[in-house]
Amino acid sequence: MNWQGVFPAVTTKFHQNGNLDMEMFFKNIDAQLEAGVNGIILGGTLGESSVLSQEEKIKLTTETVDYINGKVPVVLNIAEGATQDAIFWAEKAKEMGASGLMLLPPMRYSADHREVVTYFKAVANSTDLPIMIYNNPVDYKTLVTIQMFEELTACENIQAIKESTRDISNVTRMKNRFGDRYKILCGVDTLAMEELVMGADGWVAGLVCAFPKETVAVFNLVKEGKYEEALEIYRWFLPLLELDIHPKLVQYIKLAEQLTGIGTEWVRAPRLTLVGEERIKIENIIKRGLENRPVV
Amino acid sequence: MNWQGVFPAVTTKFHQNGNLDMEMFFKNIDAQLEAGVNGIILGGTLGESSVLSQEEKIKLTTETVDYINGKVPVVLNIAEGATQDAIFWAEKAKEMGASGLMLLPPMRYSADHREVVTYFKAVANSTDLPIMIYNNPVDYKTLVTIQMFEELTACENIQAIKESTRDISNVTRMKNRFGDRYKILCGVDTLAMEELVMGADGWVAGLVCAFPKETVAVFNLVKEGKYEEALEIYRWFLPLLELDIHPKLVQYIKLAEQLTGIGTEWVRAPRLTLVGEERIKIENIIKRGLENRPVV
Amino acid sequence: MNWQGVFPAVTTKFHQNGNLDMEMFFKNIDAQLEAGVNGIILGGTLGESSVLSQEEKIKLTTETVDYINGKVPVVLNIAEGATQDAIFWAEKAKEMGASGLMLLPPMRYSADHREVVTYFKAVANSTDLPIMIYNNPVDYKTLVTIQMFEELTACENIQAIKESTRDISNVTRMKNRFGDRYKILCGVDTLAMEELVMGADGWVAGLVCAFPKETVAVFNLVKEGKYEEALEIYRWFLPLLELDIHPKLVQYIKLAEQLTGIGTEWVRAPRLTLVGEERIKIENIIKRGLENRPVV
Amino acid sequence: MNWQGVFPAVTTKFHQNGNLDMEMFFKNIDAQLEAGVNGIILGGTLGESSVLSQEEKIKLTTETVDYINGKVPVVLNIAEGATQDAIFWAEKAKEMGASGLMLLPPMRYSADHREVVTYFKAVANSTDLPIMIYNNPVDYKTLVTIQMFEELTACENIQAIKESTRDISNVTRMKNRFGDRYKILCGVDTLAMEELVMGADGWVAGLVCAFPKETVAVFNLVKEGKYEEALEIYRWFLPLLELDIHPKLVQYIKLAEQLTGIGTEWVRAPRLTLVGEERIKIENIIKRGLENRPVV
Repeated sequence: MNWQGVFPAVTTKFHQNGNLDMEMFFKNIDAQLEAGVNGIILGGTLGESSVLSQEEKIKLTTETVDYINGKVPVVLNIAEGATQDAIFWAEKAKEMGASGLMLLPPMRYSADHREVVTYFKAVANSTDLPIMIYNNPVDYKTLVTIQMFEELTACENIQAIKESTRDISNVTRMKNRFGDRYKILCGVDTLAMEELVMGADGWVAGLVCAFPKETVAVFNLVKEGKYEEALEIYRWFLPLLELDIHPKLVQYIKLAEQLTGIGTEWVRAPRLTLVGEERIKIENIIKRGLENRPVV
Repeated sequence: MNWQGVFPAVTTKFHQNGNLDMEMFFKNIDAQLEAGVNGIILGGTLGESSVLSQEEKIKLTTETVDYINGKVPVVLNIAEGATQDAIFWAEKAKEMGASGLMLLPPMRYSADHREVVTYFKAVANSTDLPIMIYNNPVDYKTLVTIQMFEELTACENIQAIKESTRDISNVTRMKNRFGDRYKILCGVDTLAMEELVMGADGWVAGLVCAFPKETVAVFNLVKEGKYEEALEIYRWFLPLLELDIHPKLVQYIKLAEQLTGIGTEWVRAPRLTLVGEERIKIENIIKRGLENRPVV
Repeated sequence: MNWQGVFPAVTTKFHQNGNLDMEMFFKNIDAQLEAGVNGIILGGTLGESSVLSQEEKIKLTTETVDYINGKVPVVLNIAEGATQDAIFWAEKAKEMGASGLMLLPPMRYSADHREVVTYFKAVANSTDLPIMIYNNPVDYKTLVTIQMFEELTACENIQAIKESTRDISNVTRMKNRFGDRYKILCGVDTLAMEELVMGADGWVAGLVCAFPKETVAVFNLVKEGKYEEALEIYRWFLPLLELDIHPKLVQYIKLAEQLTGIGTEWVRAPRLTLVGEERIKIENIIKRGLENRPVV
Repeated sequence: MNWQGVFPAVTTKFHQNGNLDMEMFFKNIDAQLEAGVNGIILGGTLGESSVLSQEEKIKLTTETVDYINGKVPVVLNIAEGATQDAIFWAEKAKEMGASGLMLLPPMRYSADHREVVTYFKAVANSTDLPIMIYNNPVDYKTLVTIQMFEELTACENIQAIKESTRDISNVTRMKNRFGDRYKILCGVDTLAMEELVMGADGWVAGLVCAFPKETVAVFNLVKEGKYEEALEIYRWFLPLLELDIHPKLVQYIKLAEQLTGIGTEWVRAPRLTLVGEERIKIENIIKRGLENRPVV
């Protein structure tokens, strides 16, 4: 598959009673496809994966694959604590028709160099699906180092990196070291334009859930060399993109989806919907964004 | 139940092929009971809970309850990402005959004050088992604050706190604020004697897995006011206790269990057994400890 | 000199117009001596050393040495960025009659192992005054490691360590490694009783500036083995001792001195005296302490 | 003055015996001017300000002002612990003919919002020299927040910001909030191209000391919209620019200056010149850079 372009990490939609809301989910998917995104990622943080049952993850994936029907690749995120469970989901993803995997280091254990590489190789060797390694030491404590990526070149299906280290020099370091061996996708909304200018190939995006056209516009303008135009949209976009780098990104982005009409704010416990001053503050950020929304 | 004394967070024993080794597990339990521990904790980090299947957790708990047969309480750790899953395990624990629960804040999500309290209350209200809150912001990112504990006094079955903040003043702060409302158990081996002297009621211990008698001796000597004798053992013990505060505590403590004859070093992936210089270094620490082992 | 007991790091007293207030300064010194402290430390953080001119530091030191007149040792803190400046002050301290030095690693530069050891040796070899190394990586970024202290045993006049790493196990580690070669003085008020119980030899104290008798009482009771009595005072003391671990410790402790009648709140810019809600909050902590002040 | 373009924070040159080497210093200044830099900054970290005596700082500044003779502005860095000392240097700078000031928050004290603003205002109001605030919470602990900059708009001579927070979104946040009220100069070599693309006005540079032409080339190419050409040089440059973000940046950059013939490696204690493996490693990085040096 082609790891270039905008890849929304979509939210899972619920009814207020907590049941899956597939209708709203597909309404959002329609908006993404219409805006011209290049793939859909399921089961990430934004997808509230850790509160979904195994049955729900399977339902969500298979129905999404059916619905999208090959228009763009569907990528499943794997975030597991046990190697055996990661391999289980890699196989399941293939079975269900996913086109690729996003793969975190082991959860809940700060594995060392040898263990991280062994884990990634074990999963990669268990499947022929293409894989994007998700490198996010800030939220998940394990840094995937350049030396690890060196060793992982042995696995041909490890093809891309979701770069969420917040160390923006990594784009240049990786390009200097690996050329085009790994595609680099920015995984932090607030660093996206900077990393795209420096040569990143794609954007695993969050606010795209509520603002698909604007996200795609920034990506395309940068890739066409229209930096000034991109920068104008990006400056407008920043207060919204900052909703992606808060622990409550799920609630914030779902509220944005609700206000743009392509989602609802319902989440599952332990997450709670926003109340009080926090809710007003976030609503105001979103409303200010809507008032000045650029034409794209 | 009585949240006082030494509570080993026991390791799960595996054969080299990865299967559960219940025989070695019970051999270790025998050593714990013989040394005079006051309870057994299953399913914690040391128990490699995140690589056990649901079936294995159930087998381990029910067989342990049977084996211990009421001699000391059996406590099950709950570390879940979804409120519904935490409640599932609280009910299951009761069914299986556990005497109490150890409970972490939601995993993999940095919940805010309201969400943490709501989560703890939801679980506490779903069961009549007594609960010990596990407060470990260093490893799990969420700090349970004094204000949260204030609100949690509403739940009578929340009775104890595993204090792993590394902020040793918390023992005094909690005693000043709550008197005897919450039992305080030290959750960090290297701070145990200090916290017991300051009035902590118990010790959720790690190196006890390999050194049950020495751990119990330190606890008893402090409680009898024999500080000098306790300090002598504790100084000997410190290089071993430091194995508990490393990301590889499972591998280190399992190697110690193997060398003291009440365990094996086998772990499950993504964890790997120790090799090379690291293995030699840890073996040397353990062997030096064995050479100078005090008579207790 | 004897690095045992309670060593107040005294504040520098100013008039409201910013001039040195030597009268109030000596009133405080009287209270310290009367309470039975074992030495006086000048020129530390609490002494607002970084806003004193060279002339003022000299005046303060010589007049203090005269006033104390050998009753207890006077120790001068050296916190310099250049080796040559540290050596200048070591010589000056001797000239002025100080009995010892407290010595920080180089300021404003994160020196490496070789540079830190070279710096300490250069200063130690330039003087015959006894030296206490101040180990505070939290506030000053450089950790003095056990390996560095190993090399520093070559300097006989390096005799003591102000332990402010916040890693309380260091007391035991240092005693295990060096026995009585280095005296260990706790440098963090909120960890003092814990470290004294574990064998620390002294306490470089902060709240002693306002509460000299209570500080000395805790020290003496622990050293006499009366832990229960010490703990009772220490629990009362903790909310006050916590004023020592805040960036505004100077303002907080000076306000406490004012309320106990042995100091004033005046500070020099960039520090400003407390106002508004913060002032009320700190006053309330101090007043609650005064209301329940134990008889010692 | 015009806060746009490349501003080298130059190193202070010493002979091996530690004396100032003004000849080599001016040789480097010549190289900077020839390359087309837009100003010279004295007295920063790279200038080893904390090991210079007051007399040396005065000599260095006055002679530099004379030598440069108005070709570009000379800016003096002020990094003091006392407000009175900062004001002293602001006056002195004016007297000596400096064109502007770079100003850090108070050193060695974590001042709060009110104190930081009061400090900056006191210094700004004491002089009519234009000021660039140096915002570097990573090395100096105090973050200058957007709210502080809001209040500082009252001081007309506070005109620019050296942005070293490592939070690259600050360029966009500041432009969104203040438009052109403050010039933004990137203060971290490894983030320079990214920030210039996002609209930063200048670059307070480090490796420029050894590589003036390449630094100026990157700046000019970005400002001319030639991003591809700039990126090619920048990718070559990155391993060298990374020497700027290490605690030993002074030693590393001085070694680079020595190898490019416009400086020497001599530093003052507590800094020591590089030895052993570290020296070889850094030399190799520099030599690789020289081998592939682009034509600019």
